Amino acid sequence: MLNERMVALGTQRSVIRELFEFGKKRAAEIGAENVFDFSIGNPSVPSPDCVNETAIRLIQEMDPVVLHGYTSAQGDLGVRMMMADSANKRFQTNFHADNFYVTVGAAAGLCCCLNGICNPGDEVIVFAPYFPEYKVFIEGTGATMKLIPADIEAFQIDFEAFEAAINEKTKAVIVNSPNNPSGAVYSEETVKKLAAVLDEASSKYHQPIYLITDEPYREIVFSGYNVPFIPKYYKNTLVCYSWSKSLSLPGERLGYVIVPDEAEDSKLVYAAVAGAGRSLGYVCAPGLFQRVCAECANETADISVYETNKTLLTKSLREMGYHVVEPQGTFYMFPRTLINDDIAFCEKAKDFNLLIVPGTGFGCSGHTRISYCVPTSRIEKSLDAFDKLAKFYR
Amino acid sequence: MLNERMVALGTQRSVIRELFEFGKKRAAEIGAENVFDFSIGNPSVPSPDCVNETAIRLIQEMDPVVLHGYTSAQGDLGVRMMMADSANKRFQTNFHADNFYVTVGAAAGLCCCLNGICNPGDEVIVFAPYFPEYKVFIEGTGATMKLIPADIEAFQIDFEAFEAAINEKTKAVIVNSPNNPSGAVYSEETVKKLAAVLDEASSKYHQPIYLITDEPYREIVFSGYNVPFIPKYYKNTLVCYSWSKSLSLPGERLGYVIVPDEAEDSKLVYAAVAGAGRSLGYVCAPGLFQRVCAECANETADISVYETNKTLLTKSLREMGYHVVEPQGTFYMFPRTLINDDIAFCEKAKDFNLLIVPGTGFGCSGHTRISYCVPTSRIEKSLDAFDKLAKFYR
Repeated sequence: MLNERMVALGTQRSVIRELFEFGKKRAAEIGAENVFDFSIGNPSVPSPDCVNETAIRLIQEMDPVVLHGYTSAQGDLGVRMMMADSANKRFQTNFHADNFYVTVGAAAGLCCCLNGICNPGDEVIVFAPYFPEYKVFIEGTGATMKLIPADIEAFQIDFEAFEAAINEKTKAVIVNSPNNPSGAVYSEETVKKLAAVLDEASSKYHQPIYLITDEPYREIVFSGYNVPFIPKYYKNTLVCYSWSKSLSLPGERLGYVIVPDEAEDSKLVYAAVAGAGRSLGYVCAPGLFQRVCAECANETADISVYETNKTLLTKSLREMGYHVVEPQGTFYMFPRTLINDDIAFCEKAKDFNLLIVPGTGFGCSGHTRISYCVPTSRIEKSLDAFDKLAKFYR
Repeated sequence: MLNERMVALGTQRSVIRELFEFGKKRAAEIGAENVFDFSIGNPSVPSPDCVNETAIRLIQEMDPVVLHGYTSAQGDLGVRMMMADSANKRFQTNFHADNFYVTVGAAAGLCCCLNGICNPGDEVIVFAPYFPEYKVFIEGTGATMKLIPADIEAFQIDFEAFEAAINEKTKAVIVNSPNNPSGAVYSEETVKKLAAVLDEASSKYHQPIYLITDEPYREIVFSGYNVPFIPKYYKNTLVCYSWSKSLSLPGERLGYVIVPDEAEDSKLVYAAVAGAGRSLGYVCAPGLFQRVCAECANETADISVYETNKTLLTKSLREMGYHVVEPQGTFYMFPRTLINDDIAFCEKAKDFNLLIVPGTGFGCSGHTRISYCVPTSRIEKSLDAFDKLAKFYR
């Protein structure tokens, strides 16, 4: 008599969580330094000093009734002005405060966007490999997820499959670039082509298809690459951002949605996002960290370690015979497993105390996700285990 | 093509919000000290020193990667242990950490409970006068709200109407004691009778009817009264708590759900609540304030001003001829309006620069909500306006 879907969501233990528990058990047996846990996407570098300094200054200087009081549901006005200002400087845009809806992280932002625009029976297109909670969030609205198979050569978009999947029920497309789990960044060419396909399909079906862009990794991009700012290419874009990764604040839950003026019926879309926030119980985003993130919006943690790790791991794994599409951003990579059965492969990896996640959960079997948001020393120490795993299959 | 319900929820400007905007406009015209805004339930007293001291200490002493990192979805284990410990000391209970699911405030807790237990077509019973977002949260699950008319003599429960409303579709009942907007506290007699009715109905319909108790005002109770701890009276109780009012932290969004072991299928109910949290995009509650609230769980802000205000206002309004059921807790009172049309009455009050909220929005016309979480001086200065309003109708 309970809601069966919710019971199932609360009961299923995720593969990542299982790995985490296994890792704790192994660490107790053989020492934490001998367990190579690459399962979790928790930033390993501390927040920049700006974060804690700003938090302490605000606590010491602001009226606590204001600091800890309700902000307006869409976020404090001053905070939204600072966020718009930061975006305008970085992306040469013309946003104003009312384009921003401050959220309890990117997950909340995605839920607000999806619940605001979707009706039961709608379809939302997602590209493999994908962050598995998208399916949960989409199905929470009564819509269904339509998964486009991965372009495993470059982790861009298989446009043939994408175009074939669009129909009159297509309400939205979710993209995530830089991508979890592949580390790929969509090239400007990919973004332009995506926009062209969506423009054409929106015309054909006489309704906008929204492009929801999940961007928590926007700042974690490696030298030689940059991340096209998608609203400049497609007007019906809803940006879901989070400071979880750039400021190493995943537990504080702070992000925003941008609804650009250029979106059709922009004010109604914004109202729908805000109305969804209200319906889902999001009264406002946490007040102290609204202000902290706004003040630190132009900073990042020292994310250079992720590039160091990426370079070391890509080179080493390739030398061992692994096939790796070199990541362009994030702190993930998504090499091919040495057998087709990625679940069996990752199970075998545990024999070498390597904790890596099967690609199947990301909609892309035959691959494994390695989260390298870890100390570089852990990677160095783990190379022998990766090599033994490769030798086992050769 | 957007979700019409969400557009409507995001577009409707609340009566309280309208009053707030009117107040700002009037303040610019005649000076803020001459506008008597009793519209908003934002605590007027600062957080206890414990809050800011603990926040600063944690920021200075804890590893930032841990402090600002993801906690487990149900809340940090140490935090939940402290919360259980605090509840056990105060209510002589035997809770453990796994009875607690830490939430982004009570609104999130209510949404997680409702989405976890409700299916489309279910009914959820609410007693007038009631906090209007309950309807939004209930309808978000596909269930419908069934409103029981108010007991306007004492703001307890009209049991005859309540019993007549229960049927095989009744999935849950929401109570809010101390109550927004009436300030009433359910007596032990009321709680016992409520439990008896629910026990009988659960037997009759062969399924538990859940009692969801929304308790953000639990600590704001006036001398001579106490708030029965409802799980002791009815096993299928889900407690939704928030520190918004007791610690004056409404903007930081921190609370919890308790699922007692005594609830039928307790572990499944807990899973359903957690699954709903996942589906609604609540990854975890904000990490810093999880720890701050756990450490300050036995403290409150200096809430004595609310009793001072209550006493002054009750006595003064009664002398002017208003009918007031004296509040036993919260920082609201809900006197009768001097004409039946409470909306016209509150509109007229604006002529005297008195901002008070019509009872109609709380499901109880002929009344008005006065939020006295304001400096006592504002109440003293406002008495002449209340008197003029009374004289206008005499």
